[in-house]
Amino acid sequence: MILPQPLQQLVNAFERLPGIGPKSASRLAFYLLRDSSNMGQELSDALDGFRDKLAFCEECFNITVAEKKLCEVCSDEARDRRIICIVEDALDVLSLERTAGYKGKYHVLHGALSPIEGVGPDDLKIRPLYARLEDGEVEEIILATNPSMEGDATALYLSQQLAQYDIRVTRIARGLPIGGDLEYADQNTLLRALSGRQEMD
Amino acid sequence: MILPQPLQQLVNAFERLPGIGPKSASRLAFYLLRDSSNMGQELSDALDGFRDKLAFCEECFNITVAEKKLCEVCSDEARDRRIICIVEDALDVLSLERTAGYKGKYHVLHGALSPIEGVGPDDLKIRPLYARLEDGEVEEIILATNPSMEGDATALYLSQQLAQYDIRVTRIARGLPIGGDLEYADQNTLLRALSGRQEMD
Repeated sequence: MILPQPLQQLVNAFERLPGIGPKSASRLAFYLLRDSSNMGQELSDALDGFRDKLAFCEECFNITVAEKKLCEVCSDEARDRRIICIVEDALDVLSLERTAGYKGKYHVLHGALSPIEGVGPDDLKIRPLYARLEDGEVEEIILATNPSMEGDATALYLSQQLAQYDIRVTRIARGLPIGGDLEYADQNTLLRALSGRQEMD
Repeated sequence: MILPQPLQQLVNAFERLPGIGPKSASRLAFYLLRDSSNMGQELSDALDGFRDKLAFCEECFNITVAEKKLCEVCSDEARDRRIICIVEDALDVLSLERTAGYKGKYHVLHGALSPIEGVGPDDLKIRPLYARLEDGEVEEIILATNPSMEGDATALYLSQQLAQYDIRVTRIARGLPIGGDLEYADQNTLLRALSGRQEMD
């Protein structure tokens, strides 16, 4: 049996999303069909042209509403202009903001260096970063790219490039995750946790 | 940080879907933001008013396009009118059709009996089932409600009600799933597999 065409179309559209397989796609479609609230229509409205309503912040390349040049963070006078935290994706900004433990600014690279995938420095928002350092206001740059091969390579590259500036360059700590278990930690994480050991307060 | 409003709205809409948590919701939204194909807009279009384009089959209550009174199965002359397979949801019809092993018709109850949730016989499409039996053409009814407490209760209720008709009433087999492992099977499934044992051919 082929599903009625409008339903099949919806299943197909869900199935194309990352992390949603054929079974979840049909389940979602049938769920929305039965749903008595207006969930499906609300999702449709939220999706309709949402990309045209968004743009990148002209300073840090975080996401912002199209009518504003600066994002929430960059337009916030209370944020510390002396620290810039460099991340790969705008989603990482969201994760860091959720911790409520960082009061500096951000810079979103929109990717990481990857020779295999042909991503070089000019494919990332690296040049605009240098421009932000011109006025000499920035005192520290935190490299918060992912603790992956690409993220580490990007951090290494940036730390070399930034050596010419009189700026403290740091890398976010890598080690055992909180709530983690030595027994289940992989070798690399354990090695990193050992070499990165710190004095007890 | 609050996300830009159009993005936050999209995250919220995704988050309301079953099985999609806050993290998956942001991931989906950011994925669609970066996506260079037109995936988000296609999903929006597929969702837009899709329910108005669908209706229930007048005979078996499966899903059909709004302009047709009968579903794909009921309007197919090649299907065996003498067997009706009773299922809880239209999604179950899809699962059974995928097996390509059933050539009879269906009847979708749209739920299962559940005293706890206040679902009685009149809340399900049970009366229209009796109407389908009037002409005496049906020879077998397969009770394919879920092997759950509600599904079993519904099957029991229907088998009692159907006793007044001269019709063979069967229940789909319950036992170990194919590829399953005795070691990991729960007690009830094992008991059912034992009591439902069959002669080797």
